[in-house]
Amino acid sequence: MSAQTELRSWVESANGHPDFPLANLPLGVFSLDGDAPRGGVAIGDYIFDLAAACDAGLFADAALEAARSAAASSLNAFFARGASARLALRTGLYELLGEHSAQRTRLQAMGEMLLKPMNQCQLHLPARVGDYTDFYVGIHHANNVGKLFRPDNPLLPNYKYVPIGYHGRASTIDVSGAPVRRPNGQTLPAGASEPVFGASKRLDYELELGIWIGPGNARGEAIPIGEAAAHVAGFCLLNDWSARDLQAWEYQPLGPFLSKSFATSVSPWVVLPEALAPFRCAQPPRPAGDPQPLPYLFDERDQQLGALDIELEVLLLTEAMRAQGLPAQRIALSSTQNMYWTVAQMVAHHSVNGCSLQPGDLFGSGTLSGPSADSCGSLLEVTEGGKRALELPSGETRTFLEDGDEIILKARCRREGYPSIGFGECRGRVLPASAAAAR
Amino acid sequence: MSAQTELRSWVESANGHPDFPLANLPLGVFSLDGDAPRGGVAIGDYIFDLAAACDAGLFADAALEAARSAAASSLNAFFARGASARLALRTGLYELLGEHSAQRTRLQAMGEMLLKPMNQCQLHLPARVGDYTDFYVGIHHANNVGKLFRPDNPLLPNYKYVPIGYHGRASTIDVSGAPVRRPNGQTLPAGASEPVFGASKRLDYELELGIWIGPGNARGEAIPIGEAAAHVAGFCLLNDWSARDLQAWEYQPLGPFLSKSFATSVSPWVVLPEALAPFRCAQPPRPAGDPQPLPYLFDERDQQLGALDIELEVLLLTEAMRAQGLPAQRIALSSTQNMYWTVAQMVAHHSVNGCSLQPGDLFGSGTLSGPSADSCGSLLEVTEGGKRALELPSGETRTFLEDGDEIILKARCRREGYPSIGFGECRGRVLPASAAAAR
Repeated sequence: MSAQTELRSWVESANGHPDFPLANLPLGVFSLDGDAPRGGVAIGDYIFDLAAACDAGLFADAALEAARSAAASSLNAFFARGASARLALRTGLYELLGEHSAQRTRLQAMGEMLLKPMNQCQLHLPARVGDYTDFYVGIHHANNVGKLFRPDNPLLPNYKYVPIGYHGRASTIDVSGAPVRRPNGQTLPAGASEPVFGASKRLDYELELGIWIGPGNARGEAIPIGEAAAHVAGFCLLNDWSARDLQAWEYQPLGPFLSKSFATSVSPWVVLPEALAPFRCAQPPRPAGDPQPLPYLFDERDQQLGALDIELEVLLLTEAMRAQGLPAQRIALSSTQNMYWTVAQMVAHHSVNGCSLQPGDLFGSGTLSGPSADSCGSLLEVTEGGKRALELPSGETRTFLEDGDEIILKARCRREGYPSIGFGECRGRVLPASAAAAR
Repeated sequence: MSAQTELRSWVESANGHPDFPLANLPLGVFSLDGDAPRGGVAIGDYIFDLAAACDAGLFADAALEAARSAAASSLNAFFARGASARLALRTGLYELLGEHSAQRTRLQAMGEMLLKPMNQCQLHLPARVGDYTDFYVGIHHANNVGKLFRPDNPLLPNYKYVPIGYHGRASTIDVSGAPVRRPNGQTLPAGASEPVFGASKRLDYELELGIWIGPGNARGEAIPIGEAAAHVAGFCLLNDWSARDLQAWEYQPLGPFLSKSFATSVSPWVVLPEALAPFRCAQPPRPAGDPQPLPYLFDERDQQLGALDIELEVLLLTEAMRAQGLPAQRIALSSTQNMYWTVAQMVAHHSVNGCSLQPGDLFGSGTLSGPSADSCGSLLEVTEGGKRALELPSGETRTFLEDGDEIILKARCRREGYPSIGFGECRGRVLPASAAAAR
């Protein structure tokens, strides 16, 4: 442990960096000055250019193979290679970037050939998303939302047996920073018997953990729970933007559709399972009276070590706050410990019917609210369905998002004896609805 | 009209062919003897090899460009080119394949270089599916299924305002002929308070029209209803296999998931909108008292000519019927006139929130049942939720599908004064559930 605490890099900005110290080394896809998007690794304030490193002969053998596939314009092929490629790449990167690297002088001389200043780079979606599945494993969120509809019986009978999920829209997944246009659609005004068409008035965010899928399974072959972790390629933050008024009117009987498909944002950096290993923990015990998971969803090791201890944060920055020079305001602090099901349980469930998971598939965890008012992962919960306005330091209030509002998700892992790591940000700013369609 | 009726091909098997006369010319992707999959055109009992035709210099100018893109291993690029490419290709094909083709002698001499016997070819999925959306526009199906749950109030209040749809799973879309493995999953036995795990006991099919999407829209730019037809690249048959017992237990509150994601089958031939032009018709008038569509869903021309008159058929062939030498038994005869919403309305609705549609996206119409018992597009409806067994000529009965059962969907267009065309078949045979997972 102490060895890891002391791991320092000759890239000075990495040491003590809140997100990207040497212990993290997340992968992403970047470009600079409009050149071709390619894979890179976040280290402090820089992006380590994997293609440049390969070309310069900095890697050999398995690390070179892994780095070549991670240097591509999307990480799908790298995801497909699984844990051995990740380990080979990380070992190679530690050797190159550690404080006592044998090649330090040569690498420093390469300067920006090798290390691109992150703030000058554009970050892209790290992989082509095949299928996107959004789960609903945040039990406090399910409870809070259920209470708005069914005060006496918030959780449906299947919730504690089934890791509930649904298919989402892959074509509208954006990387952090892409603006989010307020959607138009049908809504049923309170008390009305006929819907109206127009811009959503109840635009919301959802704080989620994103899970990138690795090798995946052949069609018809379920992934056993004990092998599920091997099919996870990495993690990110995910904002499942939601138009609550469209959702309330459209979602019966087949689930959310246009209320979600206008935009989903993910953070650009894929935090690898190896970087998160120190932050694994036991799945919190189920409350007394809850059923045990069915055998296909139960694995002793997964129960002991399959959960994650990641601190999650939502911040809001409005136009007025920007004008007044105020910083973004934290509106929720939550944790991945609010997941009723582990990621391995989600993988095992998704494939148990023979459905094939593929490299580059993306899962959302569902909104990860905590049990308290200051840990709610959506405005729907914070404002109790729009009934209690949220007060902001600018003197404004919010029930749902206004045009110009920016939502910033962050995540951090801390544990005594280990260097902290972070996920970077998942940002999105609300643009006004399209006037053409709003007529 | 009469000119078209008389359109004959020198490919003799095309003349009077139930599916693929010269008037149809659907596109697909095929391979022969394990060679590389490539685009072809169905003509009678043959597949016209587009790559071979291009290489032989049979096309020029716009027809050549179109044929080159349709000759690829998937039709996505061709779909992206829209109506002008389809017209150029069809014109070129008419010239080559018509009875009085100037090149007839040369083409006949090319023999199987150009025309591959269809029964020796393997057919593939015609395009890479980006996103798959399943709609629910078959109003009799919605009524029939709704009655099983809510006898007094079968249709939910949104049905006549919203073309209801949900996201489906793209990774498990198969071409006709691929077997369908019975899924395992959780179900809640009647009267039980806890679910059990095992093979689905209520496996069903759904008779649907499939719609392949063409050019598509930029993110944030809704497709106006008047332009929606330009974004449809073609049509096929679609079987939305469904495990009713998994569905009943899992679908609240976010919609169907594992009960559908194990398999979706499509017919291999993409019937182009131009081939269907003679079979366009007016949208049947809405019953008295039904609301008019909201303006974004209403277009006069679409109401007059945007519906389709396609006869749809479901056949069942069991192991016992096969053993007794019996032919497949027709169990439903329905029509695309049972769609409450047109395809253009589905396209306009899907994109109205700014969601981008892309070439190769696939829509399912939803189950297209008719109003009568012999026109039901699923066993759930035929057997009223499993209560009335279907009797078969083999002496067997069915409430839901048994292992070895094969479902065959067919479609035919007929209109006085026009040559009939067909869609070919969408077949799938049920394999037993995987024993490993069934434990």
